[in-house]
Amino acid sequence: MVKVDISMNSQLEKSIQQLKESVEASIDQLLPLSDQRPDNLHSSMRYSLCDGGKRVRGILVLLCSKIFKASADPLPAAVAIECIHAYSLIHDDLPAIDDSDIRRNKPSNHIAFNEATAILAGDALLTEAFKILSENYKENPELGIRLIQELATASSSLGMIGGQMEDIENEGQAVVASTLDFIHENKTAKLIQAAIYMGFAFSEESKRHSNEIRQLGYHIGMSFQYIDDLLDVQSDTETLGKPTGSDSDSDKLTSVKVYGIEGTQKKVAEHTSQAEALLDQLGGEQSILRPYIQFLQNRLN
Amino acid sequence: MVKVDISMNSQLEKSIQQLKESVEASIDQLLPLSDQRPDNLHSSMRYSLCDGGKRVRGILVLLCSKIFKASADPLPAAVAIECIHAYSLIHDDLPAIDDSDIRRNKPSNHIAFNEATAILAGDALLTEAFKILSENYKENPELGIRLIQELATASSSLGMIGGQMEDIENEGQAVVASTLDFIHENKTAKLIQAAIYMGFAFSEESKRHSNEIRQLGYHIGMSFQYIDDLLDVQSDTETLGKPTGSDSDSDKLTSVKVYGIEGTQKKVAEHTSQAEALLDQLGGEQSILRPYIQFLQNRLN
Repeated sequence: MVKVDISMNSQLEKSIQQLKESVEASIDQLLPLSDQRPDNLHSSMRYSLCDGGKRVRGILVLLCSKIFKASADPLPAAVAIECIHAYSLIHDDLPAIDDSDIRRNKPSNHIAFNEATAILAGDALLTEAFKILSENYKENPELGIRLIQELATASSSLGMIGGQMEDIENEGQAVVASTLDFIHENKTAKLIQAAIYMGFAFSEESKRHSNEIRQLGYHIGMSFQYIDDLLDVQSDTETLGKPTGSDSDSDKLTSVKVYGIEGTQKKVAEHTSQAEALLDQLGGEQSILRPYIQFLQNRLN
Repeated sequence: MVKVDISMNSQLEKSIQQLKESVEASIDQLLPLSDQRPDNLHSSMRYSLCDGGKRVRGILVLLCSKIFKASADPLPAAVAIECIHAYSLIHDDLPAIDDSDIRRNKPSNHIAFNEATAILAGDALLTEAFKILSENYKENPELGIRLIQELATASSSLGMIGGQMEDIENEGQAVVASTLDFIHENKTAKLIQAAIYMGFAFSEESKRHSNEIRQLGYHIGMSFQYIDDLLDVQSDTETLGKPTGSDSDSDKLTSVKVYGIEGTQKKVAEHTSQAEALLDQLGGEQSILRPYIQFLQNRLN
């Protein structure tokens, strides 16, 4: 069994909750209001972005920006990456892709609105990510361009979208480890990596550690997806907010099918220990990041 | 009848053809290759972006960058705006939106590939636009951020996507001029405007003329859409590359329904003459831009 442990000490829990709330307050502040024309479109964008979600990517941006001295406010960057994550879920749930009616214990966007609105709301959240970055970092254009490049590259056809494409194409296919690795690395790990790179981009000092930061992002990103696959098999529907076993049922490639439960747990442990060794080398202010990463390794949903 | 005149003097025609070819060569160079993994996704992106299209937005970027002295190569910006235009056409044609099987005399993307691939190829072209801008202008980050802000704003929920949303919502509704104006201004005019603003952003001198440039973009963008509506009624299918009368048949709001043919022609003439007066004020190198704009006013498709 994967170790399922959601306990955090109350101080850490409070800090994480505060970071989550600050990301959500910024989302609310930066996104067009629901009554702005066209109000149906803006309601649909807010429906998927504002309510629910753990804000893992946004929180990672904030925590990594704090390791060395940040040169600007990282909150708009945290909002931008949450926009990308939210759009990808809306489009993944569409009938032509994963055809999922439930997301985060409520109707998926195309069920709550309709398919046309869901397609456009996804497009608009994707666009909004780059609008927010360009508006909020234009006084600091070198940083802004760097953030945009990290986010666009991670979520491009050579990143997240490419992973999603092969995930669809390999449904019902024979299990191949190299294909699974490609899907994991691109569909999920690259956006988690981008959160880490974007956070570090806020400090000059991180330029001296670019190798370690790249590797850190890779290991955290990979373990994150392996845990997702374990949870899909082991968790219950209510806790996960979507039908469990849905990935294994739909003939999607999952790491549990390829490596088994124990093999997948072993992969999580390997990537986690590599990430911890890299954090030892990096130093800086890790008092929240480090336990948060351990929490993510052990998360229940 | 709208004046349909595709004649250009041969020197102008040659210059425009050269600009078009330079945009297309840059698209080919900057976009991932068809055999890059996932090759089906990259083939689908190239299917809609590389073959066909007049490159009006890309050419406008190039021509406006030449009016005053450009500080960097405008070709990547021309490619980026063509990526946005191509993605919007792929998503517009989807069954849940306009349900169009034909685009540019060939099967729409979701017919040639499938719906899932078309959704992802659209997402990937949208993302690629910002990836290209951030990669190619990072040595000139102030310009880069400015280009990204112009493009993201024009194509956001408060721009192109918002216009498309209201276009769908108003199908079959009673004709209201203020709604039609909202749709025109957002769905089509804003991206044409963005092409003009992006081109001018390449020169320091344009900062002194920002008011005139804003107005110029507005008038050229508005007349462009009015002409589209006239062509939808008057042109033949083969010339237009999509079924004519399709907008009027589908109960979409068009300017011909609201203002009549003569009223729409009058609007074209008004916006054109305003644009020409603004060009007089601006000065600079207009030897190709000016006849090109006249050509656009009179284009057959």
